[in-house]
Amino acid sequence: MKIILASFIILLSIFTVQGQESLSAGGSTASPSIDPDGKVTFQLEAPDAARVLVTGDFIPDGIDNRQPVPMVRGEEGIWSHTTGPLESELYYYNFIVDGVRITDPGNVYQMRDVASVMNYFIVDGGPGSKGHYYSANNIPRGSVSKVWYDSPALGFNRRMSVYTPPGYESDGRSYPVFYLLHGAGGDEEAWLSLGRASYILDNLIAEGSAVPMIVVMTNGNPGRQAAPGETAEGLYRPGARGGAPGRSTMEESFPDVIRFVERTYRTLPGKENRAIAGLSMGGGHSYRISMSYPDLFDYVGLFSAASQISPREDSTPEQIEAIESYKSKLAVQFSDPPRLYYIACGDTDFLYPAFDQLTSYFDEMGYPHVKVESDGGHTWRNWRIYLTDFARRVFKSDPNPA
Amino acid sequence: MKIILASFIILLSIFTVQGQESLSAGGSTASPSIDPDGKVTFQLEAPDAARVLVTGDFIPDGIDNRQPVPMVRGEEGIWSHTTGPLESELYYYNFIVDGVRITDPGNVYQMRDVASVMNYFIVDGGPGSKGHYYSANNIPRGSVSKVWYDSPALGFNRRMSVYTPPGYESDGRSYPVFYLLHGAGGDEEAWLSLGRASYILDNLIAEGSAVPMIVVMTNGNPGRQAAPGETAEGLYRPGARGGAPGRSTMEESFPDVIRFVERTYRTLPGKENRAIAGLSMGGGHSYRISMSYPDLFDYVGLFSAASQISPREDSTPEQIEAIESYKSKLAVQFSDPPRLYYIACGDTDFLYPAFDQLTSYFDEMGYPHVKVESDGGHTWRNWRIYLTDFARRVFKSDPNPA
Repeated sequence: MKIILASFIILLSIFTVQGQESLSAGGSTASPSIDPDGKVTFQLEAPDAARVLVTGDFIPDGIDNRQPVPMVRGEEGIWSHTTGPLESELYYYNFIVDGVRITDPGNVYQMRDVASVMNYFIVDGGPGSKGHYYSANNIPRGSVSKVWYDSPALGFNRRMSVYTPPGYESDGRSYPVFYLLHGAGGDEEAWLSLGRASYILDNLIAEGSAVPMIVVMTNGNPGRQAAPGETAEGLYRPGARGGAPGRSTMEESFPDVIRFVERTYRTLPGKENRAIAGLSMGGGHSYRISMSYPDLFDYVGLFSAASQISPREDSTPEQIEAIESYKSKLAVQFSDPPRLYYIACGDTDFLYPAFDQLTSYFDEMGYPHVKVESDGGHTWRNWRIYLTDFARRVFKSDPNPA
Repeated sequence: MKIILASFIILLSIFTVQGQESLSAGGSTASPSIDPDGKVTFQLEAPDAARVLVTGDFIPDGIDNRQPVPMVRGEEGIWSHTTGPLESELYYYNFIVDGVRITDPGNVYQMRDVASVMNYFIVDGGPGSKGHYYSANNIPRGSVSKVWYDSPALGFNRRMSVYTPPGYESDGRSYPVFYLLHGAGGDEEAWLSLGRASYILDNLIAEGSAVPMIVVMTNGNPGRQAAPGETAEGLYRPGARGGAPGRSTMEESFPDVIRFVERTYRTLPGKENRAIAGLSMGGGHSYRISMSYPDLFDYVGLFSAASQISPREDSTPEQIEAIESYKSKLAVQFSDPPRLYYIACGDTDFLYPAFDQLTSYFDEMGYPHVKVESDGGHTWRNWRIYLTDFARRVFKSDPNPA
């Protein structure tokens, strides 16, 4: 067979080394390159450009504050910029060429956040560091599926992403299920791409710090069936609002999700084998779903959550009524408290007031919870940290590992 | 629950309409727009750019020949170009801004071919037209999984993509399996993204022209475990060569794939329930795998295949020996011929000579086969057509539908 392989390679190289189709050459300059000390060099071949900048969250107060860094034109029109040493982390960036914000043609690794496409790279500081948890490593790997399920409450088939732990295909074992919900503008792909959920789970399970589990990532927009491009709505431009209102809400329709998952996958039964967490809008969903079905979840996580507990000066009577209903439901939920109620937020997050009000209310009512206040704002960087922390705690009788 | 939803929307809009994280604004101009008559308008806001072009396979003899079309600068620095009416099809394109080839920041829909990232759009001419088969439609949808399996022959875990037909999760039925292989420079994601395999299968199954089936898309680079970015090799720049040689070949290791699939999924047994096809290098794999295991596949497809049957003037004795072994194996395979042996190629494909030699040899030997000669070259446009045609024929007692 060695001979056959060799003859095939020769055949290919005679016809040209062309690959699949390889329509275009891609960027001719590989970018970025990462030094062992964490210095990152971006490069772009652009001899005819007048001005090239790089922007990204590797810049302190970076993309948010739009402080792009000018790149320097070098020999033969190759522009470059080298950062100082960066800590172990996943970073986003874009180039700006003569005023146009672009992705790096030398880097095929990209993520979409709502309507923005950004390149990313990972500085991996080795085992135990953030960049390592977000990387593909040489360990057993779980599978990821995009699955369609029927939602009678919403009136159509919908798409979810499902992570099954390494070995699921052959071990015959049953697993606990963690429902992980995205924010406004997101979809069932957000936690997998921007949140690196499957890599984080693989790494935590491999090091033995998380219980092997199934992770279900739903689409939190009740008026939509699936991520942009995956429905008969066509290749529309994604927006922060998730389409028209649905026939019912995520809260009302969530039993459709659980019913499908527990019928389709090998799952362990009972409250102690279900967790739910979400970010921003998905934190609000997790808040209201877990209180609406107090017997379903023993582990609840709110990450930078839209979790209302206090009326505002301009609240309508209906809004005040809704908040009162939350309080009654929380009272029922905490009559037999979940093993873990985890509430996390960054100190510069625009939802910090909601976090502060909710944790104060929980303190006042004596509802046991874990309060995590981190640096930073409403960012995936924080949500990956919260996921890594939360996933270590769930499905354990002591959900507060040191 | 309506009240809760309303109060949540108000809450969000008070804090800003910010979504998940929404680091950057994305392109401010939505692009492209498609008229009902198939005219497509590209737009890019670039007031400071000196020259903007668009290139793509919507241009006759487009990207291959590098004949980009200048875009016209309009009001407020918005550059645009409108095509003539385009036929129902999926098209790729890039912009070139002051000499830098970029993706369209107004379009989040992208595909990667080896190291090139391109935008795409679909002109959908309605049911029965190519663009429609490549689109997500309002029909039952199959699931797509990225699954890790053990390959003892290659010495590591490897990743494959698996399409299961609509209803697979709940119907308890068993299905035939179609193994679909990519070309050099590709990986287990190529047929799903560039080849639109899951959309094509969904549409063919929904219209009743293809049998519901499982489609398994392997990684054809025996020295690699998975697609770029999905292994401990890190975020490397993809190349046309698929890494180092493996411990054995795709041919020798293929039983590992079949063993895993038939143990893990509900599959129908026997030769009549297995098909194999591939493009370019994957066509060569399909050629040699099917001849090496003549009892395994009743349906074989070679798409623009690297399928050697004739020695060249400079062939080494080893290569001549390999070709002789192909002839012996084909003789065994055709002693009980597959129900369908499908050989397709475009008339300007650089592998056309291999197609011509193989079909001539089959004619000479009286080996039954279906010969499909199309327009065009070594392109995904052709491979999508061949897949659509081939998938309609497999697992049928008469694999030659009108």
